[in-house]
Amino acid sequence: MKIISGGVTAPKGFKANGLYCGIKKSKNNDLALIYSEVPCAAAGVFTANKVHASCVEINQEHLKDGKAQAIIANSGNANCMTGKSGFENSRRMASVAARALGLKDSDVCVASTGVIGHSLPIEKISDAVPALAKGLSSGGSKNAARGIMTTDTTMKEVAVEFMIGTSRVRMGAIAKGAGMIHPQMELSKHATMLCFVTTDAAIAPKALRESLDAATQKSFNMITIDGDMSTNDMVLVLGNGKAQNKTIAPNSKEAGVFAEALESILLRLAQMMVRDAEGATKFVTVRVNNAKSSEDARIAARAVASSTLVKCALFGSDPNWGRIAAAVGHSGASVDPWKIKIFLGKFLVSKDGGAVVNKPGVLDRELKKKDIAITLDLGLGSHSATAYTCDLSTNYVKLNSAYHT
Amino acid sequence: MKIISGGVTAPKGFKANGLYCGIKKSKNNDLALIYSEVPCAAAGVFTANKVHASCVEINQEHLKDGKAQAIIANSGNANCMTGKSGFENSRRMASVAARALGLKDSDVCVASTGVIGHSLPIEKISDAVPALAKGLSSGGSKNAARGIMTTDTTMKEVAVEFMIGTSRVRMGAIAKGAGMIHPQMELSKHATMLCFVTTDAAIAPKALRESLDAATQKSFNMITIDGDMSTNDMVLVLGNGKAQNKTIAPNSKEAGVFAEALESILLRLAQMMVRDAEGATKFVTVRVNNAKSSEDARIAARAVASSTLVKCALFGSDPNWGRIAAAVGHSGASVDPWKIKIFLGKFLVSKDGGAVVNKPGVLDRELKKKDIAITLDLGLGSHSATAYTCDLSTNYVKLNSAYHT
Repeated sequence: MKIISGGVTAPKGFKANGLYCGIKKSKNNDLALIYSEVPCAAAGVFTANKVHASCVEINQEHLKDGKAQAIIANSGNANCMTGKSGFENSRRMASVAARALGLKDSDVCVASTGVIGHSLPIEKISDAVPALAKGLSSGGSKNAARGIMTTDTTMKEVAVEFMIGTSRVRMGAIAKGAGMIHPQMELSKHATMLCFVTTDAAIAPKALRESLDAATQKSFNMITIDGDMSTNDMVLVLGNGKAQNKTIAPNSKEAGVFAEALESILLRLAQMMVRDAEGATKFVTVRVNNAKSSEDARIAARAVASSTLVKCALFGSDPNWGRIAAAVGHSGASVDPWKIKIFLGKFLVSKDGGAVVNKPGVLDRELKKKDIAITLDLGLGSHSATAYTCDLSTNYVKLNSAYHT
Repeated sequence: MKIISGGVTAPKGFKANGLYCGIKKSKNNDLALIYSEVPCAAAGVFTANKVHASCVEINQEHLKDGKAQAIIANSGNANCMTGKSGFENSRRMASVAARALGLKDSDVCVASTGVIGHSLPIEKISDAVPALAKGLSSGGSKNAARGIMTTDTTMKEVAVEFMIGTSRVRMGAIAKGAGMIHPQMELSKHATMLCFVTTDAAIAPKALRESLDAATQKSFNMITIDGDMSTNDMVLVLGNGKAQNKTIAPNSKEAGVFAEALESILLRLAQMMVRDAEGATKFVTVRVNNAKSSEDARIAARAVASSTLVKCALFGSDPNWGRIAAAVGHSGASVDPWKIKIFLGKFLVSKDGGAVVNKPGVLDRELKKKDIAITLDLGLGSHSATAYTCDLSTNYVKLNSAYHT
């Protein structure tokens, strides 16, 4: 598998565009469109938040047949908690895009991200769609990627090329997200990060759904920035078959190769979000090994990654492993304090229910790094999981208290 | 019921003392002792954290017979994750206090609070205990209250007087806690806030345990400062019977009166902790009404109270109710977005799945208050719960990143 340029327009047959339609005060791009020349197998995972945006529900409806051909998305407004008119506005957004592209409404997926509870300025979107569609191009991925950014400081785009049998296949993606990040997305359920993936692989919708579900669990569902699950999180994947490989069947060896590529792309974008996290100064990997079950490994890693006090200590470069121990202790995972080993970087700091003394200064130096690894060995089984997080800085608090985001 | 002065020494037959034994760099009191002249009915609730201090386990053992007569506590060191020697040090702490007071070890409860993973300086404690015991006095509550403070900026003490039948009964308490506060304490399980309650009421141990459990659920278990559950949280209650009321039996009318007084005391102290929360500038009450079940009400209120983004918005006086909606949506409680009503103070800001427009400026003024009430009506049942929290300030992050606490 090799990294290539081109984002969502790297795979054959995909075009994209983005522009400013009038939603954002900053006048940055706030509208994005991704389009495949031919119908696609399509799948999505959505936020598990019971308070979710209308786009989440509409997409689930539109994806029931496992097919779609375009995605329209706006930033600057989440169109969530906007009543019945919000629902109608999401439908209209899909509908105006469908008309401009000559598609059925149900072949267009729709996504919104931004402030909750404000009416979506649908007329601005509607007025801009013809120009948006007209400007679609095979070099338009960056424009689209900018069209979905909110508090992001970096554009998030990636593409890869790999082999399915003897066919060369491409997969590309754009994503956004830097705050209100604690996704738990499930198939046909409701996961504000957005991520749109395109591929020219030919794949059965069922195989696509299964790959997406598995890849999401190990990528986006293992990152946290602030512990707040959004109302609008979603990952959408479109596969148009232009690579002309033999259609990937569920549970096949090729499905495994495809799933691995998808996981790699989603993980890369998930890590980009954490690196761009609001106010963050550090990128932190929390690995849990030898847990009793895979679910235990997952919840233990996420609990440490979510702890306010652990994140404050990381900001202060303080090797305060007692906070890590406390966090894993109330994670809900099976834990025996006498069996836990805790490592900061490569340094063992706690075992046998107590402290391990390290050379003076080494831990402080380790914690001053920009990339920090926390590893916990629970000593109760053989299951592992890795979560990704950032530190909690004074700047995060400033950003999220000073602006109505 | 009336508020009186005297803290834990307000009830008849109780003495207390506190002093500096050499643990804290600040040279503030770091040791506290509470003693009853006669044996007491005793009960405790402890942190649910699987990583908990040895004092938590030792107290459970000492309270098995429903009796105790003294409490010794230190601050500045949690004696948690300190290995087997930590366990022995906790036992020795109880033992030296027992010897100084002429009691059995099992009649002394022990508590520690402070940094995790550092060896307890037991010799300093042991050396100070004779003077600590000698200085016990019926005016010593404040000294003891100071002896358990860590990052607290205010001493936490309260006492009340009420009637059980025709007997005048007193109840007093001291407490500490300003960070790592997200208690979930249960009877015979393992809740770093500390709270010690004394009463001269005569009460059966079973009635005392039941009252304590019920009162804890509605007080300490409904506060959060930073979402991090401590390894050392505990509430201990001693009832020495000196008021000479007819012994309160389980499930009696008098047990109800007692439980109400206890809840009132615990709630007052819990609220004091939130008001003294590290870096906090606001006191926030989150009330959930008309939930489907009492557990739903509880988890919904706690989820809103725990949301990092809600707490940042509160710090910035930003009426960002969308974050409140998102938080309740992923609380796990049954929620129908179309039925939720959200109030900021007395102002309805959201209903019917959308926004309610208020007069310009009124919400900003409401949010600038020091005491803020958030109320959610879930519209699904008849159950209510109230949680207490604070804002998340830049100062909280500074405090918890700059110091190894």
